[in-house]
Amino acid sequence: MSSLPPGPGPTNAPPALPEGALRVVALGGIGEVGRNMTVFEYGGRLLIVDCGVLFPEDDQPGVDLILPDFRAIEDRLDDIDGLVLTHGHEDHIGAVPFLLRLRPDLPIYGSKFTNALLAAKAKEHRQRPNLIQVREGERRDVGVFNLEFFAVNHSIPDALAVAIRTPAGVVLHTGDIKLDQLPLDGRLTDLAGFSRLGDEGVDLFCVDSTNAEVPGFVMPERDIGPVLDDVVRKVDQRVIVACFASHVHRVQQVLDAAERHGRRIAFVGRSMVRNMGIAAELGLLNVPDGLLVDLDQASNLPESKVLFVSTGSQGEPLSALSRMARGEHRQISIRAGDTVVLASSMIPGNETAVFGVVNGLTRLGANVVHQGNAKVHVSGHASAGELLYLYNAVRPSNVMPVHGEWKHLRANGELAIRTGVAPENVVIAEDGVVVDLVDGKASRTGRVEVGHVYVDGLSVGDVGESTLSDRLVLGEGGFISISVAVDSSTGRAVSSPTVSGRGFSDDPKALAAVVPLVEMELARTEAEGITDTHRIAQAVRRVVGRWVADTYRRRPMIVPTVIPV
Amino acid sequence: MSSLPPGPGPTNAPPALPEGALRVVALGGIGEVGRNMTVFEYGGRLLIVDCGVLFPEDDQPGVDLILPDFRAIEDRLDDIDGLVLTHGHEDHIGAVPFLLRLRPDLPIYGSKFTNALLAAKAKEHRQRPNLIQVREGERRDVGVFNLEFFAVNHSIPDALAVAIRTPAGVVLHTGDIKLDQLPLDGRLTDLAGFSRLGDEGVDLFCVDSTNAEVPGFVMPERDIGPVLDDVVRKVDQRVIVACFASHVHRVQQVLDAAERHGRRIAFVGRSMVRNMGIAAELGLLNVPDGLLVDLDQASNLPESKVLFVSTGSQGEPLSALSRMARGEHRQISIRAGDTVVLASSMIPGNETAVFGVVNGLTRLGANVVHQGNAKVHVSGHASAGELLYLYNAVRPSNVMPVHGEWKHLRANGELAIRTGVAPENVVIAEDGVVVDLVDGKASRTGRVEVGHVYVDGLSVGDVGESTLSDRLVLGEGGFISISVAVDSSTGRAVSSPTVSGRGFSDDPKALAAVVPLVEMELARTEAEGITDTHRIAQAVRRVVGRWVADTYRRRPMIVPTVIPV
Repeated sequence: MSSLPPGPGPTNAPPALPEGALRVVALGGIGEVGRNMTVFEYGGRLLIVDCGVLFPEDDQPGVDLILPDFRAIEDRLDDIDGLVLTHGHEDHIGAVPFLLRLRPDLPIYGSKFTNALLAAKAKEHRQRPNLIQVREGERRDVGVFNLEFFAVNHSIPDALAVAIRTPAGVVLHTGDIKLDQLPLDGRLTDLAGFSRLGDEGVDLFCVDSTNAEVPGFVMPERDIGPVLDDVVRKVDQRVIVACFASHVHRVQQVLDAAERHGRRIAFVGRSMVRNMGIAAELGLLNVPDGLLVDLDQASNLPESKVLFVSTGSQGEPLSALSRMARGEHRQISIRAGDTVVLASSMIPGNETAVFGVVNGLTRLGANVVHQGNAKVHVSGHASAGELLYLYNAVRPSNVMPVHGEWKHLRANGELAIRTGVAPENVVIAEDGVVVDLVDGKASRTGRVEVGHVYVDGLSVGDVGESTLSDRLVLGEGGFISISVAVDSSTGRAVSSPTVSGRGFSDDPKALAAVVPLVEMELARTEAEGITDTHRIAQAVRRVVGRWVADTYRRRPMIVPTVIPV
Repeated sequence: MSSLPPGPGPTNAPPALPEGALRVVALGGIGEVGRNMTVFEYGGRLLIVDCGVLFPEDDQPGVDLILPDFRAIEDRLDDIDGLVLTHGHEDHIGAVPFLLRLRPDLPIYGSKFTNALLAAKAKEHRQRPNLIQVREGERRDVGVFNLEFFAVNHSIPDALAVAIRTPAGVVLHTGDIKLDQLPLDGRLTDLAGFSRLGDEGVDLFCVDSTNAEVPGFVMPERDIGPVLDDVVRKVDQRVIVACFASHVHRVQQVLDAAERHGRRIAFVGRSMVRNMGIAAELGLLNVPDGLLVDLDQASNLPESKVLFVSTGSQGEPLSALSRMARGEHRQISIRAGDTVVLASSMIPGNETAVFGVVNGLTRLGANVVHQGNAKVHVSGHASAGELLYLYNAVRPSNVMPVHGEWKHLRANGELAIRTGVAPENVVIAEDGVVVDLVDGKASRTGRVEVGHVYVDGLSVGDVGESTLSDRLVLGEGGFISISVAVDSSTGRAVSSPTVSGRGFSDDPKALAAVVPLVEMELARTEAEGITDTHRIAQAVRRVVGRWVADTYRRRPMIVPTVIPV
């Protein structure tokens, strides 16, 4: 079936880059969905495309965000000529503030809306980034790199693809892309531009893989309008629509439906209020005068005269919608006959949370309209059919699928091959794999170390795999702590052991047997003349661990503390 | 849209059951998917239908299983006339061993295959249950209840629906059901029997809600055969098919495909080996002589001559398939060109785990065939179209949707209404809600307490909400422990505080500031004359908690231990 090279690729350190060659390495975003960041190197200079965050999975508990691994560029910060942002989604701009901590004056190139979203984010970090606005059709030198920007269509306005010209060849990076042929803002993906670039010759094509497995074409965003309209028209109680806080065109269609049916709009959720404010200010969202009310005003309107546009479409536990579903929202309590529309996808991993919200809302009597029972969402990423258009327009020499897990990358590579790209010129490279474009041929030449960089609260990087592995153990089984003071000269216990468990049992007597057990063990270590607190602690850990495994068949963390006095 | 009563229903304790009336209460399985258990009461006697387990969600960490809450029947064990098992899935029989601990001689009624699976399970618990075999078409008195059994089609052989006749009226409980019109074993759901019962008059119809939201009809199981055949025919390397270990008909089709293409079969995974052994012994699975080999034999066969049938279709981390995906399976290491078929659904909540397995396999070069890219799975539960057939055959006076979350229950209720059931006779009752059938009318009259009963290792019930809430805190943020010995008469510290964190940071210096901080606080408590170890501990907790919130903006558990010496 597949003629692609499988598996993880080279493990060696990358060789020196030959003169006149181009190097590409993703520090995030390949082999995973999120934290997109690709570094291009030519003539000793670097250009970065995107710098996003990844949201943690179940096996990364307590983590707020995951950043790309900057180690490969940490010692070369002054070699960076610029950072290009393809669009304003978190998985493309979310890590910029962390990169700016290393290089505050980094020149950042993005479209108007992208830069505005980044500026708002940077403000929260008390940063003033060096933002340079670019637009489609524009061509400019950024250090040794010559860039050209192309309009692309995505689930956020003002997205760009970027062509990078160096003497080593022409690279085209799509960013996130789809080919909606009836876009709400009339701004088509510039397929003609891609064709023209293809005529010139594209040596390396980096292509969004997210929906490469999905056959066919994405329905136009515009087709959601009538569905939303239909929902709003039919009901005479409250309507709450949840969607992504950056999906301006989706919100526009909700606003249009509300206006047609005489409903006022209230935005719910901090990021929704902020982003729609920015979009309206930049003329990307059309808000008729008087349509918008605040939450307090909305509460005083008749139920048939109001529509809430809310965050929380992914079941985020602290979001407005989740609080409504639990009956804990301060201003909006769901009643029988209310209608809630989830005008959104379900990001893999969020299913349980989203279903929880749907069930909570249903239990309170709301009618929930979602992707599963109505056409209220379309994807922002090109399906297989659209990707074929891209390959046929660009006719690239080499292809490097980006943005996706392995299954997406391989599916995307297969599509390239079906349009005529030679299988040996399709390069599947996960994060850290170094791809060199030498004499027009791209190949994997080595690997730099790339790990997960965790943000937890205020700090970056101090939470690592060992901490996460402890959290997983603690989360599964809790811990049993045993503290005892011993005479450091004799090894004799000078107190009775203090035993307590957390996350172990609701039964207050569950650990009653541990004190005598530990006392016996301490008598033994004393009799053996052991005075080293570390050795005593180990003995205690061993005996309690064995007891809990035999008695409960569980594996809590055992935490002995032996205090020398 | 909906004319159903929304929301959680009554909160009062149930009234005394009027003479001649029937009571129904689910101790599990309504408002959730799993741990199905419904208790029927007539004339002071009880009949139970099913007794299954529920698998834990993310917010129930470390738990192995969740049982129905037996409290409502704990004091009435001798009133139970019998337990009916509709089929052998874990969510219908998994909790029986725990019920048998309370009442070892409980008469249990099930079909041949159901009883065989339960017997195997009971053996692991060293129990010898009192099993009575029943079959479709059979009618028998169980105490005051007259039972009649009907063949139903599901994703496991030998499933039954049960009619329960009492002077209060006739109840029909579907168990899990679908209406495959071309079943592999020719055993159709007995729609004619349901119609006949409908002629007699069904007063209360308890109906499987799992797929009530899904429009249309489930494709016949038989249609998967050609798809599997096609996969096996085309490849010349190894094929691994993963599916549920109880899905005999699915496995039969895999076996048939293997035989046709000259491949031997090896079963992988303990439950697969066990269940297929039982099925073959009972004549439910046809295994041609010589087809089966063990894993060691399979490893010595040419790659084109073997097919593995494995557990692990839900991404269970310890399963054979997950170990293959991580490259950790002892006997089977995935190579480029191997084909893995996930002939299974994706149970909500398992998406991340399943996608993880798919990506791991793809990364190693396997071609993964799954529900998303081929017709290799059909559901075991009736879709909306089939449910309409059921309602039209049975023409019930009252309907009580069972087996499902709120959204499923409501969707099922809507279907009943569309076939002519009066909205006020559709009873949505979550776990614990008491439904009384009085003079032919079913209504919700009260509520008994129903909670989650957790099995963790060897013990049942000692892990409760408080332990789980501690586990969630520990899993998110780890803990910081501070141990210190104090002179109990003066309150003076006689040791330096021992501070350690687990699940907090990989940085060994992360907590360096805590020791002086605690020493300062201990000096303060001593100066204030505080000698009570509990008060000293509280002071330490407060000061460390505040420090960690300010410094890290995190909330680990703070665990102070003050040892009096």
